[in-house]
Amino acid sequence: MVCKIKVGVIGYGTIGKRVADAVMLQKDMELAGITGHSYNWRMDIAHKKGIKIFNAAEEGNPFAEVGIDVVDGIPELVKQSDIIVDCSPKKIGAENKEKYYLPAKRKAILQGGEKDKLVDTSFVAQCNYKDAVGKNYIRVVSCNTTGLARTLHAINQKYGVEEVYATMIRRGADPWDIRHGPINAIVPVLELPSHHGPDVATVLKGMKIFTTAVSISTTLMHMHNVIVDCKKTPTVEETIKLFENTTRVRMVDNSSKIRSTAEIMELAKDLGYARGDMPEICIWKEGIGVHENKLLYMQAIHQESDVVCENIDAIRAAMGFKDGKKSIEMTNRALGIK
Amino acid sequence: MVCKIKVGVIGYGTIGKRVADAVMLQKDMELAGITGHSYNWRMDIAHKKGIKIFNAAEEGNPFAEVGIDVVDGIPELVKQSDIIVDCSPKKIGAENKEKYYLPAKRKAILQGGEKDKLVDTSFVAQCNYKDAVGKNYIRVVSCNTTGLARTLHAINQKYGVEEVYATMIRRGADPWDIRHGPINAIVPVLELPSHHGPDVATVLKGMKIFTTAVSISTTLMHMHNVIVDCKKTPTVEETIKLFENTTRVRMVDNSSKIRSTAEIMELAKDLGYARGDMPEICIWKEGIGVHENKLLYMQAIHQESDVVCENIDAIRAAMGFKDGKKSIEMTNRALGIK
Repeated sequence: MVCKIKVGVIGYGTIGKRVADAVMLQKDMELAGITGHSYNWRMDIAHKKGIKIFNAAEEGNPFAEVGIDVVDGIPELVKQSDIIVDCSPKKIGAENKEKYYLPAKRKAILQGGEKDKLVDTSFVAQCNYKDAVGKNYIRVVSCNTTGLARTLHAINQKYGVEEVYATMIRRGADPWDIRHGPINAIVPVLELPSHHGPDVATVLKGMKIFTTAVSISTTLMHMHNVIVDCKKTPTVEETIKLFENTTRVRMVDNSSKIRSTAEIMELAKDLGYARGDMPEICIWKEGIGVHENKLLYMQAIHQESDVVCENIDAIRAAMGFKDGKKSIEMTNRALGIK
Repeated sequence: MVCKIKVGVIGYGTIGKRVADAVMLQKDMELAGITGHSYNWRMDIAHKKGIKIFNAAEEGNPFAEVGIDVVDGIPELVKQSDIIVDCSPKKIGAENKEKYYLPAKRKAILQGGEKDKLVDTSFVAQCNYKDAVGKNYIRVVSCNTTGLARTLHAINQKYGVEEVYATMIRRGADPWDIRHGPINAIVPVLELPSHHGPDVATVLKGMKIFTTAVSISTTLMHMHNVIVDCKKTPTVEETIKLFENTTRVRMVDNSSKIRSTAEIMELAKDLGYARGDMPEICIWKEGIGVHENKLLYMQAIHQESDVVCENIDAIRAAMGFKDGKKSIEMTNRALGIK
């Protein structure tokens, strides 16, 4: 007998559709279904893939007229699942927890748009997997926080981190998003420090990190320019080795003509990653510098995909799978992450 | 005994790398190798895929220092191939024909950047496959010309085309290209008519077509806004059916939230096409209109991929495979084109 974790995915947008695909690739998981609240091409494709769709429309059945069979309602999906991954827009995850998951006593993974206090732990697998084992509510932090946590955790373990100063240069919108801008401007995010710093500290407890952010005219990845005051003095060569040996982090180099996020996205396609995603945090080899005890580096974050593997590990942790390293290996293998 | 066509690919950029991958997916073909003239990430990936790389550097071996084994020179690849697909930048294909393919008596497929008079025939498989059977030099026309030819050929067969007026709204640069603009402008292409019209007539002989073009701030696909004076009066419903039944053409609809090229690119990723490519010409269902004998439509062209399947069919045609319909079916099946 093979027991698989039945996973329900609520919200089938940028993250939800990727998590659903990733669940289907895990040997120890089975996709119980997804939700849809209105008809669009994503529903068409899910339907053709044979995924069970649960109607989450406020009223009526918008799928009937296009001939897509659906099952009724979020509560039914919750009932048919061992655990839920909630990929709804910001704040809806919190509402869903109250309305559906708590009453049904169902474990759930929430996303980084929700508040840390709603859950038992915030989560980045390679940083604090053990904090999440057996927990009921886990929050996979945002793409930016995930990226900062992955690399800062590695630095902290090797050199000790005194303090971090970082600037997030954020993509204005996702590639498919035709509503948001800017088309041609730099928009300061007037929140000081930006929420990213405190959010990193929900995973790397006690880390002193100060962040600011701007939003710019690109759809291809975020960038982080990071300066770390280290307790021990790092070297460039050692830091390159450190990052090369850190899972879900990829060194890229200008010398192979990776000069921009545009070329990282092309590399991701050439590597054959599904949807041309880049789940690894990319750090430029030539972008690492050391000045006394200060380590400077630049990393690029694929906002659409770096948290997908985290959701998979969070599912295992919540369901009581104790070995974080093993879970990361299983997830990486299934998703083709080297 | 299984005989496979040994295909050499010269030039491993946007088109070349895709053609090489497509060749490897055909049951009746084998990739003899590719060329590289300098080190970059594409060479790394080709090497890891086990593709034989032929050094095309003007002098020296730029691959030695990065530990990539290469074979010496274009002539050697030509010798080891039954046919060459030349995916070099504009005009280099013409030079290579004189320098390498003619002396070695090797058949070659050139791309749309080369002149029509250099070859025995220009080519779009579903329009004029039979003209190319057994020919030595075939030119796969540009992405834009291919898109116009696919849809205008279908219209011509059903309604007869009197005259065509079309505006090409061109992407400023490919997604990976960080050198070219514009970032924020509309650039008129001051060539009247633009070369696209006459180029269509190299495939659809005698078609009267007048085109103009602008270049804009996007990397995601070209658009064509087309007006056709038809001999017989079309209807919208019939035209939708016509395009639905035309190979390598896909109807998309606003009602499923495909409102832009950005969403077509997202659809392509969701469909699972390699590299998130969209080899089909996409026409908006709600973007088809009829006014008396005039048919109006809007189509989107994925500049990086629509010609890839054409190159595969051109290889078969050149090698004497007579059945165009069968070749198109074989290619479509191998590349996952519905």
